Amino acid sequence: MNRDVETGHRPTIVVAVDAMGGDHGPAVVVPGVLDALADRTDLQVRLYGLPDPVAAALGDAAGDPRVTIVPCLEDIEMGEAPAAAIRNRPDSPIVRAMRDHRAGEVQAVVSAGSTGAMVAGSLMLLGRLDGVDRPAIATVVPTLEGHFLLLDAGANVQCCPEHLHCFARMGRLFGAELLQLEAPRVGLLNIGEEPSKGTELCVAAHQLMSADPDLGFVGNVESRNLLLGAADVVVTDGFTGNMVLKLIEGFGGFLQRAARKLAAGGAAGGGGLRDLLGHMDYEEYGGAMLLGVRGTPIIAHGTSSSRAIANAVRVGARLAARGVPDRLAAAVAPHP
Amino acid sequence: MNRDVETGHRPTIVVAVDAMGGDHGPAVVVPGVLDALADRTDLQVRLYGLPDPVAAALGDAAGDPRVTIVPCLEDIEMGEAPAAAIRNRPDSPIVRAMRDHRAGEVQAVVSAGSTGAMVAGSLMLLGRLDGVDRPAIATVVPTLEGHFLLLDAGANVQCCPEHLHCFARMGRLFGAELLQLEAPRVGLLNIGEEPSKGTELCVAAHQLMSADPDLGFVGNVESRNLLLGAADVVVTDGFTGNMVLKLIEGFGGFLQRAARKLAAGGAAGGGGLRDLLGHMDYEEYGGAMLLGVRGTPIIAHGTSSSRAIANAVRVGARLAARGVPDRLAAAVAPHP
Repeated sequence: MNRDVETGHRPTIVVAVDAMGGDHGPAVVVPGVLDALADRTDLQVRLYGLPDPVAAALGDAAGDPRVTIVPCLEDIEMGEAPAAAIRNRPDSPIVRAMRDHRAGEVQAVVSAGSTGAMVAGSLMLLGRLDGVDRPAIATVVPTLEGHFLLLDAGANVQCCPEHLHCFARMGRLFGAELLQLEAPRVGLLNIGEEPSKGTELCVAAHQLMSADPDLGFVGNVESRNLLLGAADVVVTDGFTGNMVLKLIEGFGGFLQRAARKLAAGGAAGGGGLRDLLGHMDYEEYGGAMLLGVRGTPIIAHGTSSSRAIANAVRVGARLAARGVPDRLAAAVAPHP
Repeated sequence: MNRDVETGHRPTIVVAVDAMGGDHGPAVVVPGVLDALADRTDLQVRLYGLPDPVAAALGDAAGDPRVTIVPCLEDIEMGEAPAAAIRNRPDSPIVRAMRDHRAGEVQAVVSAGSTGAMVAGSLMLLGRLDGVDRPAIATVVPTLEGHFLLLDAGANVQCCPEHLHCFARMGRLFGAELLQLEAPRVGLLNIGEEPSKGTELCVAAHQLMSADPDLGFVGNVESRNLLLGAADVVVTDGFTGNMVLKLIEGFGGFLQRAARKLAAGGAAGGGGLRDLLGHMDYEEYGGAMLLGVRGTPIIAHGTSSSRAIANAVRVGARLAARGVPDRLAAAVAPHP
């Protein structure tokens, strides 16, 4: 292959890639690897997996000296209990790659396989940094105007305040590096602005983060402001982070479908989108209802329009007319 | 006013409305009330608030026999501690309306004022139904194809499994009524499908709900499937529910802005939307990173395209080339 080779003293970077991971294995992974190799001459890749399908996917590129196949005759299934899989499948791509990473032979490990196995493999085979009790999954989320880094996106379902503080510190450095920001704004994902809002975890984490002078902490960030760029680094526990990330991904998918639908229909821009979304009327019911009390309280948004208020009143009237409060009371009454 | 009046034996429904609630008080509330009155002849409304602005907003409609002004000379501020406000402001609209509701003089209370005060007022002045330990805020959320009922949307920041089970039972009846569904599908909002996924609260709540034969329980629902109509009634704790609701609302606002932008630009439907969204590239960084271990593991989505894999490899190479793992280690190392 005739390609300009940079001489000089740039050290070679070797990235390990699980060739078998993801929905389509080598057929998707290998072309991606070849693309990445095309724009960095200091890069080499080790492809871990079954040699035959990997070589087949490489085709002519199998001769590229910057690509190495590392034969792995086992694999970790998507549903396998992660820690057991790491222990029981020494010849799987993730285990082999992690061991090579630990030994310094590769400088990063990429896998589209089991997230649980990647986390377990990292903990068991790489080990934690000094000062870190729990590692966090950090994801870059695009917004309309920029990006933010979200962590923990799912490694730790239950956290304590110190974990969140540590996530914030790691996120700040990492966010500065990855998003090329000098002074990232670090926020705590919460359901209100005031420091007293949210769970006990939020309140305690807010205190720790506020007291850290080097954090760039901007306080609580509400979920409705995430896509508006309220912070560059957003910290939360793994359950909430995973919930929010998957919801945003769901929006992304929804938008792509909407775009295709509009293109197929040839509809005029804004009008077509408005029609498509016309059904998504947030004011249709006017307000939220408090269930479980002796009555029908309807809580309308502070920003309610007259139409929302009208709908809230209509809903209240309808519930009363249909005897819903009494039927609700009967449904929850303890059995004698 | 010449209006057809239904005679017959339909009892009058009286709805109490906090005229001072919301961002604009009577100027927005009163027109909404008048609209609602226009399509139900069995409806009357009591407007609670300062008599002068309310009368001014009513204008000629002040003579409508179906509208009553109930003068309230106090009000509850948005930031006030709710329980204290209910105790200390007996002449505020929420307190007066709740007392009248308790006395059976009105059949529903609508307010766009402080959510906390509405919840506290309901608990303190209406009381809970037998069999309910915690009431829940239930909100109807529109999806592209239909609606679902989400609860708890914010009344209980910390819940136990029995609370979630109770929310499910209330939500099922209420959802059937409000959404006109014979057999609503009730789901538990979680970060994965399997019953073992999520927090201890999720696992325990799943067990309770699975064991309830009358619930219509369809199991865990993931947030990315919420807008696809995965369930008709979605149950979660108040923190998660509020987080998810506000994110969906933020998304709704984003879509409205996108629609206006497209309309203003006259862009062709799908193409315009695609351009607008062109920046929101979920594959740009290729994967998520696990921070806090001795190395650089990059976890790509199972659904990754070749492009995502390529980007994941590029990110790994970049981080390694810039010595980020060592700098991260230094940032979190405990001070000697």
